[in-house]
Amino acid sequence: MTDQNPAVVSHTGCAPLSIGMLLYPGFTLLDLAGPQTAFGLNGQTHLIWKTMEPVPTDMGVSMNPTKTFSTVPDNLDVLFVPGGFGTVEAMRDKEILDFLAHAGSTARYITSVCTGSVIIGMAGLLEGYRAATHWGFYAPLEAMGAEPSFERVCVDRNRITGGGVTAGIDFGLTVIAAINGQRAAEITQLALEYDPQPPFAAGHPRTSKPEIIASVEALMAHMISPGVQIAKAYRQRMAAAVDRLATA
Amino acid sequence: MTDQNPAVVSHTGCAPLSIGMLLYPGFTLLDLAGPQTAFGLNGQTHLIWKTMEPVPTDMGVSMNPTKTFSTVPDNLDVLFVPGGFGTVEAMRDKEILDFLAHAGSTARYITSVCTGSVIIGMAGLLEGYRAATHWGFYAPLEAMGAEPSFERVCVDRNRITGGGVTAGIDFGLTVIAAINGQRAAEITQLALEYDPQPPFAAGHPRTSKPEIIASVEALMAHMISPGVQIAKAYRQRMAAAVDRLATA
Repeated sequence: MTDQNPAVVSHTGCAPLSIGMLLYPGFTLLDLAGPQTAFGLNGQTHLIWKTMEPVPTDMGVSMNPTKTFSTVPDNLDVLFVPGGFGTVEAMRDKEILDFLAHAGSTARYITSVCTGSVIIGMAGLLEGYRAATHWGFYAPLEAMGAEPSFERVCVDRNRITGGGVTAGIDFGLTVIAAINGQRAAEITQLALEYDPQPPFAAGHPRTSKPEIIASVEALMAHMISPGVQIAKAYRQRMAAAVDRLATA
Repeated sequence: MTDQNPAVVSHTGCAPLSIGMLLYPGFTLLDLAGPQTAFGLNGQTHLIWKTMEPVPTDMGVSMNPTKTFSTVPDNLDVLFVPGGFGTVEAMRDKEILDFLAHAGSTARYITSVCTGSVIIGMAGLLEGYRAATHWGFYAPLEAMGAEPSFERVCVDRNRITGGGVTAGIDFGLTVIAAINGQRAAEITQLALEYDPQPPFAAGHPRTSKPEIIASVEALMAHMISPGVQIAKAYRQRMAAAVDRLATA
């Protein structure tokens, strides 16, 4: 019943990938699970946290890390950060940001889904890059000086970032195609029977009713103002650092 | 850091639902996570297993139960079973099947995603019902005498069953609409930004290339023959029981 040493295999005929996925209190399970299940067919996924204790999601259940910040291998094929209602706390957590900056320095791709892009941004990993995020969380992304992308999946050199929650499936397949090619991505897509048939046209503000949009904005309101403040403070620190370099 | 007593809330303005979700060794994380994240916005999800020990998924990571077979409440709004590479073992596990038969006797909706339908079938919960499953797993479903549905989400009275893996998102929204109405489902869909944009047309055999289909069939081949055998034995037991009743 241990998952510390799962067999490192790929089911798509390519060399197994090594994927590092950050957990943090209040991440959204589906942000992680779309990419994890897609990546899991193509190699080994490390779920990473400070300790090996269970990490609670934002909706009452928990997952278990398989590696800590100090035991996860370097030179990951993909470093990944999910979003969630715990994003603002993660933006403030120096230990998380230091880990991401370190792991990001040797990772082949630096990636996120949903509000996770703002966390990798706080670690300095979006300087000069375009990035996607949840449709309700552009204000903090813009406040930190990142260039917002309104795509479902944004590919800018080795940064690949997805929109909100379910975008993680489109994102995961895009990452696999980038690394392992279209054939591996198509095998993964068919295994996951990813042939979506949304029951309503409510999945994005451009198609959703104003009253539904207002309800979801209310759900996220508590995250926006602190997210913007933290992002602005980050931008000021970066600007001051640039000034110091310029006058040194 | 405990998730044993999460706040029981609904974020969609309806009375909070009580949802029971079976875990078992070798379930697929994304089968569970689509519905869990959608349901989690509408109430409390209980993750159920024999013990409170971590339960491994089929791709190297694990989740933690929040309730056991003996502590989960009766009268669930929804009883749910995910699929996964561990399905065949679950089909053989009398303790699981006894639990499902018991919980199913008081649940308002009896549901599954992917190969999970064959597990609820083995618990006697699909007698006389249509059901969906993963596109590669119809043979065991048919062998047990259930009426196969080739829909993405099949609604037959209070049985709601989804197709493979990612169908769990369409399924989750369909269940929420059935119980809480379209408005709650649309709020959930927009919160999850469920506006899919699959990168390839490979998500179903009707659109996928023959070589890709063959690759995924090979991936599932080890499950089909034992699944069919177990399902046939179930059907024979049911037929014998009907004969005994008829001649009694």
